[in-house]
Amino acid sequence: MNHPLQPDQAGSLKHFLTIEGLKREILVSILDTAEPMTEVTDRSIKKIPLLRGKTVVNLFFEPSTRTRTTFELAAKRLSADVLNIAVDTSATIKGESLLDMLRNLEAMHVDMFVVRHPQSGAAHFIAQHVAPHISIINAGDGRHAHPTQAMLDVFTIRRHKPDFGALRIAIIGDILHSRVARSQIHALNTLLTGEVRVIAPKTLLPVDVESLGVKVFYNLRAGLKGVDVVIMLRLQHERMQAGRLPSEHEYYHRYGLTRDRLQLAKPDALVMHPGPVNRGVEISSSVADGSQSVILEQVSHGIAIRMAVMSMALDRTRAAS
Amino acid sequence: MNHPLQPDQAGSLKHFLTIEGLKREILVSILDTAEPMTEVTDRSIKKIPLLRGKTVVNLFFEPSTRTRTTFELAAKRLSADVLNIAVDTSATIKGESLLDMLRNLEAMHVDMFVVRHPQSGAAHFIAQHVAPHISIINAGDGRHAHPTQAMLDVFTIRRHKPDFGALRIAIIGDILHSRVARSQIHALNTLLTGEVRVIAPKTLLPVDVESLGVKVFYNLRAGLKGVDVVIMLRLQHERMQAGRLPSEHEYYHRYGLTRDRLQLAKPDALVMHPGPVNRGVEISSSVADGSQSVILEQVSHGIAIRMAVMSMALDRTRAAS
Amino acid sequence: MNHPLQPDQAGSLKHFLTIEGLKREILVSILDTAEPMTEVTDRSIKKIPLLRGKTVVNLFFEPSTRTRTTFELAAKRLSADVLNIAVDTSATIKGESLLDMLRNLEAMHVDMFVVRHPQSGAAHFIAQHVAPHISIINAGDGRHAHPTQAMLDVFTIRRHKPDFGALRIAIIGDILHSRVARSQIHALNTLLTGEVRVIAPKTLLPVDVESLGVKVFYNLRAGLKGVDVVIMLRLQHERMQAGRLPSEHEYYHRYGLTRDRLQLAKPDALVMHPGPVNRGVEISSSVADGSQSVILEQVSHGIAIRMAVMSMALDRTRAAS
Repeated sequence: MNHPLQPDQAGSLKHFLTIEGLKREILVSILDTAEPMTEVTDRSIKKIPLLRGKTVVNLFFEPSTRTRTTFELAAKRLSADVLNIAVDTSATIKGESLLDMLRNLEAMHVDMFVVRHPQSGAAHFIAQHVAPHISIINAGDGRHAHPTQAMLDVFTIRRHKPDFGALRIAIIGDILHSRVARSQIHALNTLLTGEVRVIAPKTLLPVDVESLGVKVFYNLRAGLKGVDVVIMLRLQHERMQAGRLPSEHEYYHRYGLTRDRLQLAKPDALVMHPGPVNRGVEISSSVADGSQSVILEQVSHGIAIRMAVMSMALDRTRAAS
Repeated sequence: MNHPLQPDQAGSLKHFLTIEGLKREILVSILDTAEPMTEVTDRSIKKIPLLRGKTVVNLFFEPSTRTRTTFELAAKRLSADVLNIAVDTSATIKGESLLDMLRNLEAMHVDMFVVRHPQSGAAHFIAQHVAPHISIINAGDGRHAHPTQAMLDVFTIRRHKPDFGALRIAIIGDILHSRVARSQIHALNTLLTGEVRVIAPKTLLPVDVESLGVKVFYNLRAGLKGVDVVIMLRLQHERMQAGRLPSEHEYYHRYGLTRDRLQLAKPDALVMHPGPVNRGVEISSSVADGSQSVILEQVSHGIAIRMAVMSMALDRTRAAS
Repeated sequence: MNHPLQPDQAGSLKHFLTIEGLKREILVSILDTAEPMTEVTDRSIKKIPLLRGKTVVNLFFEPSTRTRTTFELAAKRLSADVLNIAVDTSATIKGESLLDMLRNLEAMHVDMFVVRHPQSGAAHFIAQHVAPHISIINAGDGRHAHPTQAMLDVFTIRRHKPDFGALRIAIIGDILHSRVARSQIHALNTLLTGEVRVIAPKTLLPVDVESLGVKVFYNLRAGLKGVDVVIMLRLQHERMQAGRLPSEHEYYHRYGLTRDRLQLAKPDALVMHPGPVNRGVEISSSVADGSQSVILEQVSHGIAIRMAVMSMALDRTRAAS
């Protein structure tokens, strides 16, 4: 299903809920808007007045200091006022109390909700029920999507290797439970990437994974051959406990990215990871900190991408009002 | 007892602790100051420099994300710096440690404390012991007062029905334990409201309730007849446990505001509630969300009233210094 | 060991980790920079644009609302953006996860970490491992140092008695466990104070205490005789439990500062305390609140000193970039 909610009638960005269904032009426009934002965060006075007098609410139903921090910094550097609201996760997403909370925050004339929630579809549900003047940014919902993460990933790739059509990109790890992987695959395919591979044991792959437009590899060495970009995913400890994997040691033995294995990729292949890194579980320290790693660039670009998405979404609102 | 602490010698607002004892002119002046503030929060750049360089401290001895958020937003939209301090409730209000905390914050040159406390009289106690340059706003103390809530309520009424002398207004629910009701009654009487009614079972009414200047009804239908405004109160769950009420179901049966009962009031009667609403306990969803409900307007006006009170209190201070 | 990390090659302040090893000129320059800052916090609009567009991160591995508040206020009054990050203390200071966290915050282009940590040396460790563009301010590390506290103390002394060479100053209490005392002793000796005394029972003194350049007194009355400044330390309750002291009552009996004992000092002797005060344990209420006490001045000056240190450290960075 496409998400008619996302771009408004005029085709500009209103909410940012998922990559799926967005046109290539919109993704490129986000990437282009983020370029000058990297200069803002590089300079001495890291502040522009684009969102002065706007109120951004971080509505986190799932704790994440890391993600919350990047959105808070992005909003503050755009001169917005920021409210952090940590919501009790026991509140069900579709209960009256959530809707009443939304109505109340709307009535306070806030302009944007950055939503993180453990249930898939939460950001969509909120976007469907929110007042027309408010923009929703999905900061991760269940296993569904994490669109700003995927955008900062493709932004990082484009800065090094701008011709997506010529690229082979492998995503390695727990594809099944990863909202990050799902959003990355949609973004890479929308940008017409030459080949998108996923590498994982069968127990960590969705049954319909090929339908997402990827080539599947169960063997790490085979999958790494000749790729331009290696994207690692974080392995959640609870996967072990759920019996989907024998042990961290065994996982590292079969799927961990080591120096030795990285040599199967192209010599200038990029190594990426959404963080936080599990050293010695999905990746060795020498690769995570090595010369091919762009993991910290991803973090920097995360601020720029979030500044871009926030300003595009609220600019639209402003123009409309 | 009047509260000589509140308006200073020159008659302008210094602290805002309770409605009781304030002259009609001061209430009207707060309402008039709030009018242009509603325009500030309606426009695209919701920020004015009135309190730039001032420091507002939210000093909450009782957690309330909702109330704290409205004060924080109001202060930020006035360009003040805001510090949120959650204080351990186990600290007794009159202990040395509280006074030492006040002395320390004073020495940091903060300008205003927004105080919420489970004990009645806490805001007064703090106002009596604070340095002369600091203003205190009572954001709810025990069963005593919640003056900004009452002011946003009368502000909302005035916008729809400006002639208070011609109005019959009913307050329904737990009058006994409600600081909101107490402040509303004082505000409505000070503004010379035609008739103020309270409707509740005997167990939820103070013994001396008539002395507050209200007409008492135990029967909901009788009390609703011909009123211009219906103000519902939130029913606290602990009242059931304390044996003051048989059950929520029974309460709704006798005192819940339904569509049917609302028809006893005037056809254009306003429905109000301080929130959060207990649907199906004190009010039906269809009434809470119905065309006569101004519950969300109350929330919006809460920001404007708090901006008005904060700027009036600190303006005085500024002029004096 | 000197700390070559602190002042940079050009001799200006980069980090502020400890007083030990800093030249007298740097201390005087901090004190001189703080002077006009006291005027900023005294005036109606307490805000200057010195750090506009800078991001200050309060990185607290040990909770302290009080200290965090003074740094937050100082940063906001310099117009910086402030992020508060409370870090789980269970994380070991030298673990990979801490380094990864530093790398991530660096990548977000923050400018300063204000670090508080229960382990001695934590701020140094972070300063050694942080990117060159970031300044570290030590807000207290284990028993080691609390340099901004010591600077606000000497600032307060200088405002009353500017000729340090003519002063006899006594520090009273738990010298052994106190990072505050350690930093005060270094600051006072660097400023060439006439005589620095420490007064404590043997169990609360380091074995090598004379090597710090102080005169030791076990008897309070003897130590107080003729001093110009009396600096009290806070007695931690856990010292009783650890068996180092018989009881609070016994401690007060032997080392508590009472009106009577204070008369042994010079008639115009200053009484100081870093707060929060334990009334009736290390000091009587009448002395803490008496006319010789400058305890609340210390709090006020704490904001000015922190504004001075922050602006000096980031000015350097700015000039270099």
